[in-house]
Amino acid sequence: MLYDLIIIGGGPAGVAAGIYAARQNLNTLLIAKSFGGQMTRKSVDIENYPGFEKISGLDLMQKFEKHLRKNKIDIEIDSVSKVEKVSGGFYVSATSGKQFQSKAVIVTSGADPRPLEVPGEKEFIGKGVSYCTACDGPLFGDKEVAVVGGGNSGFEAAISLHSYAKKVYILEFSPQIKADEINQKLAQKYDIEVITNAAIKEIKGKDFVDSVIYQDRKSQKLITLNVQGVFVEIGSQPATSFAKDLVEFSEKDEIKIDPKNNMTKTPGLFAAGDVTDVRWKQIVIAAGEGCKAALSAYEYIINHG
Amino acid sequence: MLYDLIIIGGGPAGVAAGIYAARQNLNTLLIAKSFGGQMTRKSVDIENYPGFEKISGLDLMQKFEKHLRKNKIDIEIDSVSKVEKVSGGFYVSATSGKQFQSKAVIVTSGADPRPLEVPGEKEFIGKGVSYCTACDGPLFGDKEVAVVGGGNSGFEAAISLHSYAKKVYILEFSPQIKADEINQKLAQKYDIEVITNAAIKEIKGKDFVDSVIYQDRKSQKLITLNVQGVFVEIGSQPATSFAKDLVEFSEKDEIKIDPKNNMTKTPGLFAAGDVTDVRWKQIVIAAGEGCKAALSAYEYIINHG
Repeated sequence: MLYDLIIIGGGPAGVAAGIYAARQNLNTLLIAKSFGGQMTRKSVDIENYPGFEKISGLDLMQKFEKHLRKNKIDIEIDSVSKVEKVSGGFYVSATSGKQFQSKAVIVTSGADPRPLEVPGEKEFIGKGVSYCTACDGPLFGDKEVAVVGGGNSGFEAAISLHSYAKKVYILEFSPQIKADEINQKLAQKYDIEVITNAAIKEIKGKDFVDSVIYQDRKSQKLITLNVQGVFVEIGSQPATSFAKDLVEFSEKDEIKIDPKNNMTKTPGLFAAGDVTDVRWKQIVIAAGEGCKAALSAYEYIINHG
Repeated sequence: MLYDLIIIGGGPAGVAAGIYAARQNLNTLLIAKSFGGQMTRKSVDIENYPGFEKISGLDLMQKFEKHLRKNKIDIEIDSVSKVEKVSGGFYVSATSGKQFQSKAVIVTSGADPRPLEVPGEKEFIGKGVSYCTACDGPLFGDKEVAVVGGGNSGFEAAISLHSYAKKVYILEFSPQIKADEINQKLAQKYDIEVITNAAIKEIKGKDFVDSVIYQDRKSQKLITLNVQGVFVEIGSQPATSFAKDLVEFSEKDEIKIDPKNNMTKTPGLFAAGDVTDVRWKQIVIAAGEGCKAALSAYEYIINHG
């Protein structure tokens, strides 16, 4: 079956694209590993998606999925392994072995957590090392934990952890903190200890994590922090391997798009949301970008159909 | 008082910008004639703002306004008459005579309905001529009405009017219909009569409208359609007069922005939403753009403060 459009990804950008594509009567397939994208890893309630004063990432994800499913659209829960350009459109292959065909494709595959890549990190995943505060935070009741990363997601993770843990540290590599001021104030209020100039060197433990070792980049000294949990919040890696031959990448490995119409360097291949080089990664921006990509793909399909 | 940021407009773009600016701890003033922008003129329920499967424009507007007011932000209900660049920032003058000062400005003043500019139009405003189906539709119970404009807003107006009026026409100037297919199908289902190639020449009546005269652009014949209501839905005019010396305009009189960061040609002056040359005018796009503009303005203020 030849679809008009295949959307890859089930986060805010993919859902918005799906709603708009279905309303344009495009014969559309959405393929996603799961719904919600990074929203489901959010450690604090979302208070900045206009229309919802305060909502958990899980609840907003469910609203998005329900909204999408109300429309006429095919949905496959699967993982995309390859997108190929062929005459008249694209082949999209999934790890299940299924293959689909369409006239146009929108990539909204978002981003995965970026690992620290230090000794001990991989070994202790699930044994003290976590990339998801919302999932694992409650396991650290009355323990001491370190969050690595002083951006908004690091601060939000720390703020969320403070309600479980006995002591929360934030370790930031650079000399300055980049989190919003509102988050910095909350961290101060909750006695979260912020350590800047900290280069993580190793995560240690026996069965479970018992410490993290960092180098103070000013004094060059190695310092051991006794913690039972390490939450890694140092940004994300765009999930783009399946399309790497068809797009250009920014220096952050994001897919470069024309910001006016979300087209990549391959005609008919669009991208939206956190997987792209859009300057800021926010739910409402991703949703708006998904909408733009769908309307742009609609025009492309009409003109090349 | 010197604000960090003044936001002009209370539609989706302005509200999103306000929420984000307040969360960045910017000392912010939002000036708007009213809240909701064009959403309040929507004639059918909104079904494409992700997260709300179906909601009236009025209800969504109220949610937006409530969400905004939950944040620390000053709000003035007023109309902006002039924005001037001065040393260190901007003066913003309102028609009330008040004047405000800020380091940066975001224009999200949206767009007003575009008039037909034919004889009879002005005279019969409120007497059969309307630019707001949501406001005036219910007054046309069991009457015959014409909607001028065959785009999505024209079709949505006609679809909404069909539940009141005895007969609904859509008059479109061009040979083709540009509305979404979903809207075209609904119009067909509801026996809405679509007339293309119709150039409106005059609106006639005594105390109230009793007919609209159009020229069939193929046969050149003048045709009189007996209707008691004329709903004008031929697009909108960006509301930009107060900033005209500081920005560049597209051929549609929209404010030109850098699509990456929402900056206009004047440093410190940003714009977002339907007032700009963003390609598609949709609520979720406007909200995303407002968010982008606020985060961009934040960076500007930090770097130039």
